[in-house]
Amino acid sequence: MSKRIVIVGGVAGGASAAARFRRLDEAASITIIERGPHVSFANCGLPYFVGGRIGGVDDLLVADPELFAKRFRIEARVLHEVISLDREHHEIEVRELATGRVYREPYDKLILAPGASPIRPAMPGIDLPGVFTIRSIPDSEAVRAFVAAKSSPGSELSALVVGGGFIGLEMTENLVHRGLSVEILELADQVLPPMDPEMAGLVGRRFEENGVRIRLGEALAAIEVANSRQTKGLDGSLVALTRAGERIPADLVILALGVRPESGLAARAGLAIGERGGIVVDAEMRTSDLDIYAVGDVVETTSFPSGERIQVPLAGPANRQGRIAADSIAGRPRLFRGVQGSAVLGAFGLTAALTGASEKALIRAGRSGYRAVALHPPQHAEYYPGAHPIHLKLLFDEASGQILGAQAVGEEGAVKRIDVISMAIQLGGTVEDLEEAELCYAPQFGSAKDPVNLAGMLAANSRRGLVDFQPWSELGKDGALVLDVRGEAEIGKNGGPAGARVIRLEALRGNLDQLPHDRPIQIVCASGKRAYVAARILAQSGFRASVLNGGWESGREVASASDGA
Amino acid sequence: MSKRIVIVGGVAGGASAAARFRRLDEAASITIIERGPHVSFANCGLPYFVGGRIGGVDDLLVADPELFAKRFRIEARVLHEVISLDREHHEIEVRELATGRVYREPYDKLILAPGASPIRPAMPGIDLPGVFTIRSIPDSEAVRAFVAAKSSPGSELSALVVGGGFIGLEMTENLVHRGLSVEILELADQVLPPMDPEMAGLVGRRFEENGVRIRLGEALAAIEVANSRQTKGLDGSLVALTRAGERIPADLVILALGVRPESGLAARAGLAIGERGGIVVDAEMRTSDLDIYAVGDVVETTSFPSGERIQVPLAGPANRQGRIAADSIAGRPRLFRGVQGSAVLGAFGLTAALTGASEKALIRAGRSGYRAVALHPPQHAEYYPGAHPIHLKLLFDEASGQILGAQAVGEEGAVKRIDVISMAIQLGGTVEDLEEAELCYAPQFGSAKDPVNLAGMLAANSRRGLVDFQPWSELGKDGALVLDVRGEAEIGKNGGPAGARVIRLEALRGNLDQLPHDRPIQIVCASGKRAYVAARILAQSGFRASVLNGGWESGREVASASDGA
Repeated sequence: MSKRIVIVGGVAGGASAAARFRRLDEAASITIIERGPHVSFANCGLPYFVGGRIGGVDDLLVADPELFAKRFRIEARVLHEVISLDREHHEIEVRELATGRVYREPYDKLILAPGASPIRPAMPGIDLPGVFTIRSIPDSEAVRAFVAAKSSPGSELSALVVGGGFIGLEMTENLVHRGLSVEILELADQVLPPMDPEMAGLVGRRFEENGVRIRLGEALAAIEVANSRQTKGLDGSLVALTRAGERIPADLVILALGVRPESGLAARAGLAIGERGGIVVDAEMRTSDLDIYAVGDVVETTSFPSGERIQVPLAGPANRQGRIAADSIAGRPRLFRGVQGSAVLGAFGLTAALTGASEKALIRAGRSGYRAVALHPPQHAEYYPGAHPIHLKLLFDEASGQILGAQAVGEEGAVKRIDVISMAIQLGGTVEDLEEAELCYAPQFGSAKDPVNLAGMLAANSRRGLVDFQPWSELGKDGALVLDVRGEAEIGKNGGPAGARVIRLEALRGNLDQLPHDRPIQIVCASGKRAYVAARILAQSGFRASVLNGGWESGREVASASDGA
Repeated sequence: MSKRIVIVGGVAGGASAAARFRRLDEAASITIIERGPHVSFANCGLPYFVGGRIGGVDDLLVADPELFAKRFRIEARVLHEVISLDREHHEIEVRELATGRVYREPYDKLILAPGASPIRPAMPGIDLPGVFTIRSIPDSEAVRAFVAAKSSPGSELSALVVGGGFIGLEMTENLVHRGLSVEILELADQVLPPMDPEMAGLVGRRFEENGVRIRLGEALAAIEVANSRQTKGLDGSLVALTRAGERIPADLVILALGVRPESGLAARAGLAIGERGGIVVDAEMRTSDLDIYAVGDVVETTSFPSGERIQVPLAGPANRQGRIAADSIAGRPRLFRGVQGSAVLGAFGLTAALTGASEKALIRAGRSGYRAVALHPPQHAEYYPGAHPIHLKLLFDEASGQILGAQAVGEEGAVKRIDVISMAIQLGGTVEDLEEAELCYAPQFGSAKDPVNLAGMLAANSRRGLVDFQPWSELGKDGALVLDVRGEAEIGKNGGPAGARVIRLEALRGNLDQLPHDRPIQIVCASGKRAYVAARILAQSGFRASVLNGGWESGREVASASDGA
């Protein structure tokens, strides 16, 4: 008897599992049950479809039921909703949405891939026309249609985006691209919550420079219909009320508050659900019922390398999980290695990318013994036209040198460095491995000492006891003397820490007698490079010297982004 | 007593060693002896300086003797040439070039970093005015001055570049950028000899599309002064004669025939020299004299991971070696791990990058049991505007899955993939690691299944016995039936292999009885994707099926580039 495989949900993980299983088992019967009107569509493209950069719905459709049928002999039933699982009889109950007809479908193995749904908090006005979430093609078409209908020549539509995470920021940039005036409301005290605040601050500032107003630490309380012209000069058709009592007029409101795994069906059937609301699976993607697998946004998985349980909605891991579930069912078991959380945002010419643990996550997990280095090297040789800094942060374990995570923000080249470090993390690499990495170099692509090498060098030097890095937050504390080794002209032009002793690096060797042996000395220069040389001079003369992490001129941008200064 | 460190050569490896050693040892005396007029200049920028993209000499100077003196207390003596080593007395003999004065300089530890010099074969006319090599800033200034002096409005200068490697191609593109008409003479039957011919062919074609004439398999025999108007309608002031007897008129000739390690000094002092002419060093960069180190282009090193002895002039490894030599002398030994040969060329909007072993190198080394997969995925989501293929080739060990090398050619995103694979190779990664890599994904940066993942999947599927890939060279051989699973319209538009049996993938399951069980079946589609699905259908029905590596439409471009078709 050939196997009957039923897959609930036909987008990233479900579609991958279905196609992979067919390639492994020509005889099986494979059925996809999808509640929405589309299978295998590019949901990561939805903000760009709203923004008009992706022109038509067809562009978003990676495959359709006809292709599944003809190429893979897979039956994909769209607009069919699974309403219950009967584990005992190995059947599911399905409703055909067009007719309301309910029927039962038997399975030998079931793969749950229903995804996650946007959070839509219960509050007054949440269902008003003009309030949107973005999960599906119809959602996105609705926003496009709404904007088109409300637009009139000479007047600017306004939007409020609630939530400053990846989707919220992508939606914001795309709405600005369409000519809307956009405001962001974010509960946290930073945008891009997966990043550390000083890195996310750089992103927030770029949005503000492009006319986006960002309100941090504020939550949405209600949405009302606007009756009349509002105070801000915008004739919004809606008014959002914040918990703090602010009234924000907007023609439309986009809810981008994150997603919740659609694990209700699994929970009602008694499958194990984790603390974060996702289905619990083993490394072969099996649920607590060995004939039922789950993949994609609906599952809880482990964070690699920390081992923490997480629930991360990312397309790449969903695809990998789908293939692994298919392989397991086909008797070719492989283990899912966990999720590093590699992600990227591109907006207004800036790129922000991350992989592995953030410092926030390490603190939250109570992890000790980690260190961070910050640096701001250009994306390619300084001497080649068009060099711009990449703000790079590397987190590592002080004792073992293992790389824990990295974040990068820059005009160009940020993704490349994070992707390289992602591979290093995957393979258990250390900061010394980054120091010795051999990346492609020509002046328009990188540097002989690539930013990845430099990050590794700083971290490795720290581990070798050659240098201590001082975070910005500790500058001048604990009775430390702050020593600025830049020249007076440079300080005059770019400012410097208040109360610093100034001795140019070039004059340092002749002036060691002016420095105290009984106080820590924190050394400042523009990027940290000269301060490191100074620290080595001082350390070898018995001083307790440390280097301001990331330097003053480059680091200040990051530090002030985090201060909101 | 403080150590006396003398460093011969002050560019990449020498300058790195000097600065690193100062940071480790404040007391030592450190002296750089440099024959040329500059220390620490950006030699990888020279072609771009000639092309005018880098405007001034100052941009190329990373550091100067004054900075070395003031910041690092390092004495950098430019225009001083080391003429002999007296190992017994731990002294070197130096000539001050300005005065001719010869003096002796004592050392405790000596670091040799003289680099490599461009090959300038002995032949008639090689020293004529207008014949250049590019190693130093003065060399490059000479070319700029020559071009400026010969240029006149309305007439096009012509250049012959002898050698189609990285430097030859970079010089070519920069001369075209300056408005010259350029011809390349290359002895090998391809440009970019470190790459495999089918990949290098894509680069050659791009040069030809930009008006560059490439003559392969031809060598320079002599250069003459032109007496009169030449046959080609160009009034060249020189004529290059090829061994085959061709006469090529050119206003200037650039020799880019590769470099030779400047190991003469070391050889005369009896230090061990390898087969490739480079100084032999151990993993701490020590020569056969334990008080003498050598770093950079002058040394022979090992290829990683093959272990082959190689001599590769690359700035990144030179810098790493300089630091390692300094660490060793300072009593902080670390081991140089070898060179992967990661390199990149950017020209005419195309990028060609590679890391690790090429297929040519594997064949040359007699390596068996390796496999290659070819693919042509877009650099980012197909559905996002601006997708262009990356031609990607991955070499791996069939038994262990270890990655051996990779090459990529594309408009965008080629370097990123090679850098990620370079890190995987460094850490001993397998194709399964590439399959499970988690790279940053947003539609403008990559795909949920990144090209790196896809390369890993193809290779891992091959290792799992799910698919056999057929190289282009074997198409239709050994009595194989070629099966084209594309539609007739698609074949009509894009062509296909002669004599192929055509059965659309969608019709394949119903037509299995038309296929022979007694012949191998080689399956063709556009990219290899549908052919893989077809191969899985056939394999499960007992046919001997394989997939044309890289597909027809995308692969054809690569295959024809290698055929010169």
